[in-house]
Amino acid sequence: MGKYVIGVDYGTLSGRAIIADVETGRELPKVCDYNYPHAVMREELPNGKPLPVDYALQHPQDYLDALSNIVPDVMRCNGVSPDEVIAIGIDFTACSVLPVDKEGTPLCFSGKYSDNPMAYVQLWQHHGAQKEADEITRVAEERGEKFLARLGGKVSSESLIPRLWKIAKDDPGLYHDMDEYLEAGDWMVEQLTGNRYRNSCDAGCKSLWHAKEGFPSKDFFRALDPRLENVVEEKLHSPIRPIGSKAGEITEKGARLTGLNPGTTVSVAIADGHASVAGTMKDAAEGQMVMIMGTSCAHFLVGNEDKIVPGCFSVAMDSVLPGFYGYECGQSGFGDHYAWFVNHCVPEEYSQIAKAKNMDIHQYLTEKCSSLIPGESGLVALDWWNGNRSVLNDSNLTGLIMGMNLTTRPEEIYRALIEATAYGTRKIIDTFEESGVPVEKIYATGGISQKNAFAMKIFADITKRPIRIAASRNSGALGSAVLASLAAGSEKGGFDRIEDATAVMANLTDIEYIPDPKHSEIYDKLYTTYTELHDYFGRGGSPVMRKLKDIQKEAVLKKAEWSLTDYLTM
Amino acid sequence: MGKYVIGVDYGTLSGRAIIADVETGRELPKVCDYNYPHAVMREELPNGKPLPVDYALQHPQDYLDALSNIVPDVMRCNGVSPDEVIAIGIDFTACSVLPVDKEGTPLCFSGKYSDNPMAYVQLWQHHGAQKEADEITRVAEERGEKFLARLGGKVSSESLIPRLWKIAKDDPGLYHDMDEYLEAGDWMVEQLTGNRYRNSCDAGCKSLWHAKEGFPSKDFFRALDPRLENVVEEKLHSPIRPIGSKAGEITEKGARLTGLNPGTTVSVAIADGHASVAGTMKDAAEGQMVMIMGTSCAHFLVGNEDKIVPGCFSVAMDSVLPGFYGYECGQSGFGDHYAWFVNHCVPEEYSQIAKAKNMDIHQYLTEKCSSLIPGESGLVALDWWNGNRSVLNDSNLTGLIMGMNLTTRPEEIYRALIEATAYGTRKIIDTFEESGVPVEKIYATGGISQKNAFAMKIFADITKRPIRIAASRNSGALGSAVLASLAAGSEKGGFDRIEDATAVMANLTDIEYIPDPKHSEIYDKLYTTYTELHDYFGRGGSPVMRKLKDIQKEAVLKKAEWSLTDYLTM
Repeated sequence: MGKYVIGVDYGTLSGRAIIADVETGRELPKVCDYNYPHAVMREELPNGKPLPVDYALQHPQDYLDALSNIVPDVMRCNGVSPDEVIAIGIDFTACSVLPVDKEGTPLCFSGKYSDNPMAYVQLWQHHGAQKEADEITRVAEERGEKFLARLGGKVSSESLIPRLWKIAKDDPGLYHDMDEYLEAGDWMVEQLTGNRYRNSCDAGCKSLWHAKEGFPSKDFFRALDPRLENVVEEKLHSPIRPIGSKAGEITEKGARLTGLNPGTTVSVAIADGHASVAGTMKDAAEGQMVMIMGTSCAHFLVGNEDKIVPGCFSVAMDSVLPGFYGYECGQSGFGDHYAWFVNHCVPEEYSQIAKAKNMDIHQYLTEKCSSLIPGESGLVALDWWNGNRSVLNDSNLTGLIMGMNLTTRPEEIYRALIEATAYGTRKIIDTFEESGVPVEKIYATGGISQKNAFAMKIFADITKRPIRIAASRNSGALGSAVLASLAAGSEKGGFDRIEDATAVMANLTDIEYIPDPKHSEIYDKLYTTYTELHDYFGRGGSPVMRKLKDIQKEAVLKKAEWSLTDYLTM
Repeated sequence: MGKYVIGVDYGTLSGRAIIADVETGRELPKVCDYNYPHAVMREELPNGKPLPVDYALQHPQDYLDALSNIVPDVMRCNGVSPDEVIAIGIDFTACSVLPVDKEGTPLCFSGKYSDNPMAYVQLWQHHGAQKEADEITRVAEERGEKFLARLGGKVSSESLIPRLWKIAKDDPGLYHDMDEYLEAGDWMVEQLTGNRYRNSCDAGCKSLWHAKEGFPSKDFFRALDPRLENVVEEKLHSPIRPIGSKAGEITEKGARLTGLNPGTTVSVAIADGHASVAGTMKDAAEGQMVMIMGTSCAHFLVGNEDKIVPGCFSVAMDSVLPGFYGYECGQSGFGDHYAWFVNHCVPEEYSQIAKAKNMDIHQYLTEKCSSLIPGESGLVALDWWNGNRSVLNDSNLTGLIMGMNLTTRPEEIYRALIEATAYGTRKIIDTFEESGVPVEKIYATGGISQKNAFAMKIFADITKRPIRIAASRNSGALGSAVLASLAAGSEKGGFDRIEDATAVMANLTDIEYIPDPKHSEIYDKLYTTYTELHDYFGRGGSPVMRKLKDIQKEAVLKKAEWSLTDYLTM
């Protein structure tokens, strides 16, 4: 009889379950998915009621339906019996939050609130409380609140407090009726165990909480809005537990939902990106970084100390691995950025040769690039096609490319865009190190890391760190399984230390990209040009990018006005 | 019986003749061309002797053959008899120079020198004397020579003195044997008339001569090289005559060469770009500018005063129209710049839709652009894909484009590149006006002006000047004809004043692009962003462009070294 753990990853559009063998770390071959029937509700509620712009809601019933499909399926498909499963762990998009009553029933399930948008899950992408987020930032700045520096100086509308405040202001009845405003991941754990905890990851990264300092003071909340003075006791009152700890055991109700045996260990929830760390970082120690390289890129760094790093979204104890500080940074344009080039800037000639050679266009461009050495094109770019998340945290920044001449070719531009994203990562790493947080080694997961060896070589050369590539295509779900094995403990066949759990279960390929010092030497020089442009356009040396945005906004207004004039004079 | 003038335009690869009616200004329909059999000799002489890099030579026999073909042809094709031709004028690429003996025979025609590269015509593109040009600049700077400011602060290797000096140093025998070092245009006029004059245009723009101050002093030439002390008397001794004046009449020899009647008026030669002014500028007066818009762009401005304009290549009396100062500026990337984009950056989808619609890709991009208003794309570019001629005069500068985001589309980039060239022209205009030389109206000739109405509208909106489009596709040859009509004078059926000649003969369409104040208002704002980038990267605020070039040069050297290592370790 084997010993297995299940990891469930709740993404934006679907839930996914995997099973891993606790003793060997092997992921079983079958993965089960379930697409949420309501997907993301942007335009209307299930009953047809229209939604304001910037709304992105979900239906919590979809999460239950996902669980009751994929957990039984993943056991059956892989030939694992419930008796062999020692624990289950859940990760969830964050911040995705919903109001629940004392029994843990979502308010949107009741007739009274089924047509109230605020009673549903506000998905991470929901930006309905931008005004509140900005106001919280302003007040915190004014009062010199320490938590602001831990969040890169800005409270995001993709976090819990602004949304809860908006409900308090706009819908006092709903605010009154909710027992608690809960992360969806924590709510799912409650469905399985009957126990309600808030997880340390979401609390630290999305709810202004700090392991030593707790939530912001009553004074602060009162300064925001007198109605919020007691918000913690009133709406955020469940105990906070570290990730990797046990939330409880499967109840009879949980067993009916999942097909698992009552008594199976359930770990505390975690945010989805953060969960990837436990699935990827074999050597759980200070100075290890995980990059999740997809359409955008997230950087999670493990540290022993609590430092303030400029432009870092969050630093929190127990947010990526229990017992460590977790730091999160990110780049907003990444795979998206390469895709932009491939979709809009590759000439017909190249597309046709690629087709004739039966290559995808990335492969063909890579082949064309491979005869170039660093610096040879004379190009440098800023990777700001989608703004800059870290370390400048400014969504108004835009892309730049320079050094073109009449002999510049598409593959040179493609390479320059890839290099730009690597310089952006290097800038993040340098900022960590300048702030006293070491970065020694990089683990990479996500599509780009597995598909684009050319880009990965450039990343190694530019960051001057070895980059080890993950094997799992589901590192979030695997990370949840790893944390579940820790929650189960050795007594039940799991692990007692996170280092032991990741050493066995983190799933890596043999591929490691080692920096080539010859290339790194040239890239060091090119990086100084990137830095100069980065600081000049990004740190206030030049107002040109902002000016262009202002002119653009004015132009859009003028255009509407002019077409009206055309219409009136027709 | 009609009255006609012939204009002959000697271009880089061919000679071309046109005929115009002096009374109506009408250009006759047939144009005759002759391609030079030796074209441009870059790699070897006719006898197979190899040439150094950076050499660009021509064979003067080709010019004679051109003339004896195209002049008889253009009369025959258009049904004009030699009796009806009152004058002929010649324009020539400049500076294209050759050594001749006392009789005007090119030294390369003699057995002694036929295998000596320096005995041939050094074409304008010849850069064999770059070192000498740089040294002349250095010495002139050191001595505070006034002529330097009139040449934008730099003596070009595309001018006469550096080349003559190189001959004096490298081949004293040839230097001794030449009677004079002559512009090819002046040499052609000597072949027709037996008279040798140097024309005021080439002397002023390419030979350091000034109408009031003459050539640089003996002191200066001695400081350069004692052998040059008497260079003017020895090798540049023929009298200098203003353009539009009479050089003489067709001799018996000239008649045999051309089929024209002996006694036909021949005007003094002129440089080819400069000749376009007389063929285009209907209102010959201060403040009128002609733009020749082709692969690159030349700007010729007419003024009443002798001013120093930073970044202007040359200011000289009688260089574009007799009796006026002519100012010359230029942009090195222009049609080339648009072509770069079209050839390398247009996606397959667009190419195929354009084909399906039976449009060329410029038309299709223009159609896509036409729904955009200024500023709407959020983009701005620097037009330095081929360096910057005016007003920065720095070939090390490179292209830049900024403001991209993930929704940026190819047509927006295309438009931004066109706008960048228009900002470059505006920068030239602003520099003129800041230097006290007014610019009131623009005439445009050359391919882009006639083919790309969309670009021309943008130029009008950005320069805030009306732009009138030329009708002639041969405005250089037409300008030579106009100047010939002036040389003939009213007595022979021509004109006595240049204003009268151009008023009748300059050949314009009815198309005039008028700035739209709504657009200009937005472009004024965008232009401030262009100016900021222009000054920051072009005037020494930032070393990034130069650094990138240095890194690029190093990379190219390293690459060669690395492949050698690969080879040695194979």
